[in-house]
Amino acid sequence: MSFERTWTVRFSDSDPFGIAHYPRIIDAVHETSDMFMVEIGHPFWELSQDRGFGLPIVEVDFEFKAPVEAGNEVTIALTPEVGDKSIRFDYTAICDGTVTFEGYEQRVCAEHGGGGAIEVPDELRDAMASYAEG
Amino acid sequence: MSFERTWTVRFSDSDPFGIAHYPRIIDAVHETSDMFMVEIGHPFWELSQDRGFGLPIVEVDFEFKAPVEAGNEVTIALTPEVGDKSIRFDYTAICDGTVTFEGYEQRVCAEHGGGGAIEVPDELRDAMASYAEG
Amino acid sequence: MSFERTWTVRFSDSDPFGIAHYPRIIDAVHETSDMFMVEIGHPFWELSQDRGFGLPIVEVDFEFKAPVEAGNEVTIALTPEVGDKSIRFDYTAICDGTVTFEGYEQRVCAEHGGGGAIEVPDELRDAMASYAEG
Amino acid sequence: MSFERTWTVRFSDSDPFGIAHYPRIIDAVHETSDMFMVEIGHPFWELSQDRGFGLPIVEVDFEFKAPVEAGNEVTIALTPEVGDKSIRFDYTAICDGTVTFEGYEQRVCAEHGGGGAIEVPDELRDAMASYAEG
Repeated sequence: MSFERTWTVRFSDSDPFGIAHYPRIIDAVHETSDMFMVEIGHPFWELSQDRGFGLPIVEVDFEFKAPVEAGNEVTIALTPEVGDKSIRFDYTAICDGTVTFEGYEQRVCAEHGGGGAIEVPDELRDAMASYAEG
Repeated sequence: MSFERTWTVRFSDSDPFGIAHYPRIIDAVHETSDMFMVEIGHPFWELSQDRGFGLPIVEVDFEFKAPVEAGNEVTIALTPEVGDKSIRFDYTAICDGTVTFEGYEQRVCAEHGGGGAIEVPDELRDAMASYAEG
Repeated sequence: MSFERTWTVRFSDSDPFGIAHYPRIIDAVHETSDMFMVEIGHPFWELSQDRGFGLPIVEVDFEFKAPVEAGNEVTIALTPEVGDKSIRFDYTAICDGTVTFEGYEQRVCAEHGGGGAIEVPDELRDAMASYAEG
Repeated sequence: MSFERTWTVRFSDSDPFGIAHYPRIIDAVHETSDMFMVEIGHPFWELSQDRGFGLPIVEVDFEFKAPVEAGNEVTIALTPEVGDKSIRFDYTAICDGTVTFEGYEQRVCAEHGGGGAIEVPDELRDAMASYAEG
């Protein structure tokens, strides 16, 4: 059962054709990952400040299938797939029953200071479990 | 009774000291004005597309009194003050009982295509009335 | 011979670890595509306003190989690959001799108003030719 | 003799009427302050990391006098006015001979960690002197 949030496309996101600028869509995706981490009780800032590691992005791939415009309510679903030392966030965005964009962020679990990838802590793995593809 | 929304400061809003970058605060203010216009039934895009006018900003003034950091929940209150051909949005942002920033956007009611300022339509004035300072 | 520009990472792009937020990197990539179109004499706004078509993005894929921080000078190279009805912009970003990120934007040549993909006009194809992979 | 830079308004800055979104103008202002600090040899990140203080913004005031659109070249001039424990950056933006916006950022010189305002170091004051109003 994926994590879902609704993104309302704003006037300030829209371009001369009335559709959302692509960098503003990326902002909405990034906000979704932030909301998800809060939801599971491990916000990005808590990992960083208190636990000394983070989940930096090593790859993104997104396909844009249909434009969205100011006023559209877009349901963005995030499904985590937890690997050994990495986590993939899969995204599907639906507006009016149509997929508007989908893709993923590949993240690694990495200590600050360049110590390289570490195993995803069990606590984080467990917190994501109920949102993972069943 | 002002319009209020809660802005959660995100990791991606924060700077090397962990506090929100000032342009990201402006994004949050702008989003608040957009949410308010939706709330009163006159979203910016509806004014623009269907009614041929807008509320462009002619002046902003903001005072930043205390920093906010990722994870903070900031209550941003918007109070409209409707003039003859102009509208001022007053903002007060509170976090943990402290004013973090406050200020205003001065907007004019203007036709597209450079026709100059027009009187604020009664329908829009009425829609804002219940949120105005009593 | 690719198109190149230098992106200076700004303080306002940087996160609590001093490295650039990923959405701000996307902004820099997008700015690069805009600069390229100006360079070849066909800015995005001219295509849109005067010629009735655009180059909307249908897919992006980026790999982030090394972080960049405020003050870094990043050379972003753009190499266009022109297809029949589509154009791919390949990006490689170098900082201090190291690839910091690389990837592509897949774009289609499309008329405004939903008329679907059209052939890339010869004039645009020719303008991009000297920047394409030889 | 003010510090000047040219800001090219990008397609991705523009709204459904083809004019720049106001938060994107703020981004351009902020970038200008960053470029100025690099120019005088005291980039924001150097102050922060090596010297333990910063120039946080305590007030902004901007008047928007004429819209700008994608493709416009806007000359943004920054004039510093150095006080005892504070610095004001005055901005004037000109496009095609017309003032498009003008205003200021009021900044304080403050130690990190909440130690309060400190005197502007002589070295910083001297570096700004030649750009100040004569």
